[in-house]
Amino acid sequence: MKLAELGEFGFIKRIRAAAASGEGVCHSIGDDCAVLELPPGQRLLTTKDLLIEGVHFQRAWTDSRSLGRKSVSVNVSDIAAMGGRPRHLYLGLGVPADFSVEELQLFMDGFLEAVTAYGACLVGGDTCRSPGPLLISVTAEGSVAAGREVRRAGAGIGQIIYVSGTLGDSALALQQLGKGEVPDSFLASRHHDPTARVALGQALAQAGLATAMIDISDGVLADLGHILKASSVGALLEESLLPLSGAFRAVLQHAPHLLQLALSGGEDYELLFTVAPEREAEVDALARTLALPLTRIGVITSADEGLRLRAADGSLRPAEGKGFNHFAQ
Amino acid sequence: MKLAELGEFGFIKRIRAAAASGEGVCHSIGDDCAVLELPPGQRLLTTKDLLIEGVHFQRAWTDSRSLGRKSVSVNVSDIAAMGGRPRHLYLGLGVPADFSVEELQLFMDGFLEAVTAYGACLVGGDTCRSPGPLLISVTAEGSVAAGREVRRAGAGIGQIIYVSGTLGDSALALQQLGKGEVPDSFLASRHHDPTARVALGQALAQAGLATAMIDISDGVLADLGHILKASSVGALLEESLLPLSGAFRAVLQHAPHLLQLALSGGEDYELLFTVAPEREAEVDALARTLALPLTRIGVITSADEGLRLRAADGSLRPAEGKGFNHFAQ
Repeated sequence: MKLAELGEFGFIKRIRAAAASGEGVCHSIGDDCAVLELPPGQRLLTTKDLLIEGVHFQRAWTDSRSLGRKSVSVNVSDIAAMGGRPRHLYLGLGVPADFSVEELQLFMDGFLEAVTAYGACLVGGDTCRSPGPLLISVTAEGSVAAGREVRRAGAGIGQIIYVSGTLGDSALALQQLGKGEVPDSFLASRHHDPTARVALGQALAQAGLATAMIDISDGVLADLGHILKASSVGALLEESLLPLSGAFRAVLQHAPHLLQLALSGGEDYELLFTVAPEREAEVDALARTLALPLTRIGVITSADEGLRLRAADGSLRPAEGKGFNHFAQ
Repeated sequence: MKLAELGEFGFIKRIRAAAASGEGVCHSIGDDCAVLELPPGQRLLTTKDLLIEGVHFQRAWTDSRSLGRKSVSVNVSDIAAMGGRPRHLYLGLGVPADFSVEELQLFMDGFLEAVTAYGACLVGGDTCRSPGPLLISVTAEGSVAAGREVRRAGAGIGQIIYVSGTLGDSALALQQLGKGEVPDSFLASRHHDPTARVALGQALAQAGLATAMIDISDGVLADLGHILKASSVGALLEESLLPLSGAFRAVLQHAPHLLQLALSGGEDYELLFTVAPEREAEVDALARTLALPLTRIGVITSADEGLRLRAADGSLRPAEGKGFNHFAQ
C-alpha cells in the first residue's frame, strides 16, 4: 500500500487507535493540543531531539522498528538524565515519498513499543511529507519531584565520577557500518536500539545520590566537559577504569587506538554522574539492585586542573572534551 | 560569517543569552531538559508543528524574520484554540549549509520577538545541520484552568458558528506567490506573519462561552468538519456571511470563483467556535473589547444533515470538508 492511498488522516487514525491513554492524560490525539495533568508537587521536564536521515541515521543501516524505538530512547534518555519519569511523547514525522506504509507501520510499532516499555504514552504529533530525508522530531515530557531534579551543575571537588553500562559500543558499530563491515549483533543493538537508563536516573534522584548528571550522547569526554563547565570544576579520568564490553575489548586487541571511541564516540546513552565519596557503598548497592554496572571512572578536581586523562602507564595528559559540532561540516 | 565558524555551541550560546526566563521556568537551556512548574489547578497543553522548506514554506517567498515569527504563531495558535495561555517554546532546527549566520540570526530575532509578544519564553531545543531543506520543528506548551479547556467536541444543535478576523487572505497570497505575482502587503502579511488569537481563545474559555473551538489551518470547511465529527453534529454555513477583507474583496470582484479560497484555503489561523444562541450579546461585547471582528457564519444542525452551504442566491449544496492531505502527493 502506498502512503498516498492510506492518506494522512488514515495514518493518524491508525496511530490514534494504537496510542494508549495513561495516568494524567485528560485528552490526547484528536484536539489541537494534548491536555495533561501532573501530580501535585511534580515539576515538568521537557526535551526535544531531531533525528534526520543522512545526519543522525542511514535508512540502509537500520531496520525501521529499531529506528522507531531509538527515536523514543534518545529523548527519554534526557528525562532519565534529570532523574525524571517519562510521561508524554509527541512525534513529528516528515515522510519521504519512497517510505512505504509497511515501513511506516514498522517504525510506529517500534515507537509505540518503546513508549510503552518506558511507562509513557504517545499523546500528540504532526505528520507531513518530506521532499528530502526522513525527518523524525520527538518531544518528551516527564516529571520529577520538585527540587529532586539532577542538573549538570552540582559536581563538587573530591566527588566520584561514575558511568553506567559500557562505553564506545555504539561508536564502534557506527564506524564498522561506515566501512561496510557488519558489526557484531551486540554492538549493532547498542547503536540501533539503545536503552535509556530511566530506573537508574530516578533512583539516583530520589535518593539524592547524584550531585550532577548527564546522558552520554556526544562521548564521555564531551559530556563530562558539560558537567565540568556547569559546575566550575575539573576532573581526572582513569583510562584503565573505562567500562568496556567484551565485544569492544575483542576489537581493541587488534586495534588499540580504537580506545578513543570509548572516550569521544557518541550515542552511548549511558548516564554519567557524580557522587560524594562517602556514599560509594550506596552506588554499589544500586548497581546490584538494577543489575547494571556502575563504574567509578575518575574524580572531580579543581577547575584550574581542567579535564585530565591518566593512561594505563600512569602518564597524565590534558583532554579536550569537545562535543559533536553539527555545524562544522 | 559562515555557520561552520560560529559553530553549533556558539549558536546555542547566542540563543541562551537571548532567551529570557519566565514565570514557572525553574531551569531552561543548558540542561538535558527544561524544568518547569505550572500554577496549581492548571492543566498542561502541548502541541507541536513541523515547518519544512518546500512543503510549508519557500525561502524565496518569505523573509527569515517573518518565518521565525510564523513558526511561533502557528504553534501558539493551537494553544489559543484550546483557550490556553502559551508558556514555553522549544525550537528544533535543521539548518542547510547555504543558510547564513545572518539569516539564522534574523530567523531567531523573529522567533524570539513572537515568543515575547505572546508572553511565553524559549526554554529548549535542538540544532543540527540539514542535508536538504530548512527544517523547523516547534513545540509549544501552555496552560489552562482545569476543565476550562475548549475541545473540538462540544458543539450542540442550534448553536451559532463564529469565526474571528477574515478568511482566505493567506490562501490568496499563497496562490498569487505561486503564480509569480506580488501580493498586496496586507495579504502577504496575513500569509507570512499570521497572528495567533490568544486573547480571544482565553476570553472564550474563561467565560465558558465557546462550546467547541479549533484554529483554522486547513480552511474553514475542513476545520469545521473536525468539530462536526468530534461533536457528532452537522452545520449550515451561509456563504454571504463569510468575513472577507477589503483586499480579498477587491480581487474577488474580477475573479468570483476565488471565494473558494475563503472556504477551503488554509493558514488563516483564525478561531472557529460555537456558542449557545442566548449568549450572542456576550460575543458581540467581546469583539468590541478585543477590537477583533467575530462573525456569525452559520448554525449547528443535526448530524444527518451533514455540512451544507447556502449560497447568496439561497440555493443549498452539500460541502465536503476535507483537510489538506499531506500524503496525497
